[in-house]
Amino acid sequence: MDCAESLLRTALASGVDVCFANAGTSEMPLVTAFDAVPGIRPILCLFEGGCTGAADGYARMTGRPAMTLLHGGPGFANASANLHNARRARSAMINLIGDQPSWHRPFDPLLNSDIEAIAGWSSAWLRRTGSPDEVATDFAQAAEVASEPPGRIATLILPLDALWAEAAGPANAREPRRPDGVSRDAVVKTAKALHASGASALLLRGAALQEAGLRAAARVQAATGCRLLCDTFVPRIDKGAGLPRVERVPYFPEDGVAALAELQDLVLIGTSDPVAFFGYPGQPSTFAPKTCRQHLLARPEEDGRAALDALADELGASKEPPAPTPAALPPRPSGALSAEAIGAAVAHALPENAIIADEAITCSATAYAATAGARPHSHLIVSGGAIGWGFPGATGAAIACPERPVIALQADGSGMYTLQSLWTQAREGLNVTTVVYANNTYEIIKVELARAGIDNPGPQTSSLADFRDRPLDWVSLAQGHGVPGVRVETAEDLMREIGRAVAEPGPHLIEARF
Amino acid sequence: MDCAESLLRTALASGVDVCFANAGTSEMPLVTAFDAVPGIRPILCLFEGGCTGAADGYARMTGRPAMTLLHGGPGFANASANLHNARRARSAMINLIGDQPSWHRPFDPLLNSDIEAIAGWSSAWLRRTGSPDEVATDFAQAAEVASEPPGRIATLILPLDALWAEAAGPANAREPRRPDGVSRDAVVKTAKALHASGASALLLRGAALQEAGLRAAARVQAATGCRLLCDTFVPRIDKGAGLPRVERVPYFPEDGVAALAELQDLVLIGTSDPVAFFGYPGQPSTFAPKTCRQHLLARPEEDGRAALDALADELGASKEPPAPTPAALPPRPSGALSAEAIGAAVAHALPENAIIADEAITCSATAYAATAGARPHSHLIVSGGAIGWGFPGATGAAIACPERPVIALQADGSGMYTLQSLWTQAREGLNVTTVVYANNTYEIIKVELARAGIDNPGPQTSSLADFRDRPLDWVSLAQGHGVPGVRVETAEDLMREIGRAVAEPGPHLIEARF
Repeated sequence: MDCAESLLRTALASGVDVCFANAGTSEMPLVTAFDAVPGIRPILCLFEGGCTGAADGYARMTGRPAMTLLHGGPGFANASANLHNARRARSAMINLIGDQPSWHRPFDPLLNSDIEAIAGWSSAWLRRTGSPDEVATDFAQAAEVASEPPGRIATLILPLDALWAEAAGPANAREPRRPDGVSRDAVVKTAKALHASGASALLLRGAALQEAGLRAAARVQAATGCRLLCDTFVPRIDKGAGLPRVERVPYFPEDGVAALAELQDLVLIGTSDPVAFFGYPGQPSTFAPKTCRQHLLARPEEDGRAALDALADELGASKEPPAPTPAALPPRPSGALSAEAIGAAVAHALPENAIIADEAITCSATAYAATAGARPHSHLIVSGGAIGWGFPGATGAAIACPERPVIALQADGSGMYTLQSLWTQAREGLNVTTVVYANNTYEIIKVELARAGIDNPGPQTSSLADFRDRPLDWVSLAQGHGVPGVRVETAEDLMREIGRAVAEPGPHLIEARF
Repeated sequence: MDCAESLLRTALASGVDVCFANAGTSEMPLVTAFDAVPGIRPILCLFEGGCTGAADGYARMTGRPAMTLLHGGPGFANASANLHNARRARSAMINLIGDQPSWHRPFDPLLNSDIEAIAGWSSAWLRRTGSPDEVATDFAQAAEVASEPPGRIATLILPLDALWAEAAGPANAREPRRPDGVSRDAVVKTAKALHASGASALLLRGAALQEAGLRAAARVQAATGCRLLCDTFVPRIDKGAGLPRVERVPYFPEDGVAALAELQDLVLIGTSDPVAFFGYPGQPSTFAPKTCRQHLLARPEEDGRAALDALADELGASKEPPAPTPAALPPRPSGALSAEAIGAAVAHALPENAIIADEAITCSATAYAATAGARPHSHLIVSGGAIGWGFPGATGAAIACPERPVIALQADGSGMYTLQSLWTQAREGLNVTTVVYANNTYEIIKVELARAGIDNPGPQTSSLADFRDRPLDWVSLAQGHGVPGVRVETAEDLMREIGRAVAEPGPHLIEARF
């Protein structure tokens, strides 16, 4: 057994059995080791951003790390934007990077780069394996770190000479840590604050936004009248018919400030004080009023769901809160498409138990609101603001949950960053239906221009703000990657095509032109 | 005039008039400033790797920096693999990154990242502008640094509040430095060594590989019998009928060692001792024999062309060396395609004065050899081993030299990294004809497997080594980006389609399936 095999055997023992890979020469021993270790599934991605975005989507749905296999420093650089997103989402992930043999690296061969610098900023834990007998134990530690609740990014640099050496055997897998419980004191103090508050809200994240957490939050809401909020770019929230409704904090500062203006008490569960995505002249950086008291009930690494249950009990809340007021579906849309019509069409056509992978960017807010009353689903949103998460994130979610249909809501500008993941969806036969918001515009730039009072931008500005002069042909792009595609221009056609796509196994892409 | 405009006016005064851009909110003042500063051409790329790859291709053909405009740390990360290539190619480039307003950044907004870490490793010069009155002067310095011969990467981080502030005016442009001359001593010593040598070679790079440099090298060759060599991954070499032939150092150590085995003296002009791309068990890291004396005639920042002229004069070489032995074109290929047949077809069909942008990877050596006797052309090769340079590099070369046809030789695996540049080719109407080597295989992995004695890899290994089970449809991929595409399976069809594509304005893609 070589050390590469010992690493994969350690992975399997650690419960890490999926690897999103784009390998090269410096990862060869790991490539061949997959055949020696049945039970680990390597999944080829044609671009490294697809590997890390998929691992992020996978972690959001399973709570467990996948591996990625990346080729040297430049390969890691290509993977980095989605690591930024995963870091912000607090997703678990283990990145493996092959490197030159240790005796060759001092010659600074052409592909050599400062991997530690490239990988360091996005990784919570980074190690370069020093010798063959550390390969398996380093991996075991990486797996342990990555699995620390709610999840961290661990990165292991593996010199080729360590990988191809003979190994003593795999390392012992370590038991994943469970999230810490919150202190009794925090529960009691929060309960008191909510009792006394004239206007309060829970800002929820992590496990608190999955069904059991939401039920506990609803008990607190029933007992106190508090609002339920989530971050603008929440990694995952379970929502839809029958689930408590959670308001999403708006994107722009003026809207965020307005949404929180009346709050006297804000309870943080697994997250922190909302901060504006960008700073604008004359606008505040944070949304909550200065007079609002903030109460940290659970840190991200603590058990937010249990904290909510304890809080509800402390408040004497009913074990069975009243059923949430059902959110209405928007009116069934018809005719020409718009962001609103697409959101409404998706809401009507959404299949049972779906996962929405949402990189709709400027169109996300309408889709989020429209689907509040749709069939129950999990809604994943690009979480760090680095675009290019959508196709990969949907891919990883589909690998994680093969029994659930994935509906990817994809802005076209950001979709062009990592569309190679469509090919992985085709090869793996994943049940992903992508709806591309095809306005051929970087709508966020137009919105920012309007906010700056520029309603008639000049030709150069326009050339950077949209590409309507050379629209993308998403049907051909999909087909090029092996995914059947169709173009629609009406809401009726969109709903029908979503239904068709979901009914047929494998990936589909629908270009919603508007 | 705001500071963004003052920056662009400084750029124009510095001779920097092209900007490959993919902007977001933190770059808005620069986006709108393009309309205030006529003469600077913003070129939209749909992915940041396309920006830096294009700037690299542009610099290789002009010797001057283009700007790139990148969105925050993640945008820079996406651009980094091609910065690795540009750094290794010693290409001039100025990267502009917008960032949060300085007063908002301490709140660590979601898109915030460690830009200094992300950009530092690939940049020769990196600065975060501290205040509005530094915007223009910082740019002037970035332009000066980037233009230092042969070229460097300068990166400027621009907080939004500095960009949108009122400016006093543009900064003074600085005169670009000319390359240093080499010392008389180095010329005399090298001449003596070549005189005395039983087997010598010049290893050429930079200006030494353009026509005037090559003519000077040919004079030295005529006077001494030395060989002319270039690096495996040479950024640019002018070659073809009528030009002196230069042997490319082979890729694998055993071949590189064999190629240099007899050398007694190796003269380095603008480059350094050949190092193996990867280290292999039992193989040396460098190619030249231990007994070979090395002579540094010109460092990369020195004037290699003038050094060769001085060396030729010192050797008493004829001013007019005999015409180089013409390289034969390979036999006109016919029938089914192979790497060799594609190279031969390109050689026969290559138009006059073309630029070859070569990311053919494992197929590059055959294409390089086959085109040695083709019509005169410039041959650009991905220079740092980070794949994803081909489409962008071809795009930048076409922007640099609109009067020259660009023939891009593109491996399919690496082509999938940055194919978004096809769209830029379409929008800008660039005369780029891409030939995709469509074997649906990461051939380098198969070669490495064979070298490791693995002739029948298992199914998991194979799934990471090729994608022949789900071949890419390059005709559709091209069409999706607005580029007409055609698939060919014979050499005759390939030659005919290259001819057709070159005769018709705008980009074309030919999928050469084999």
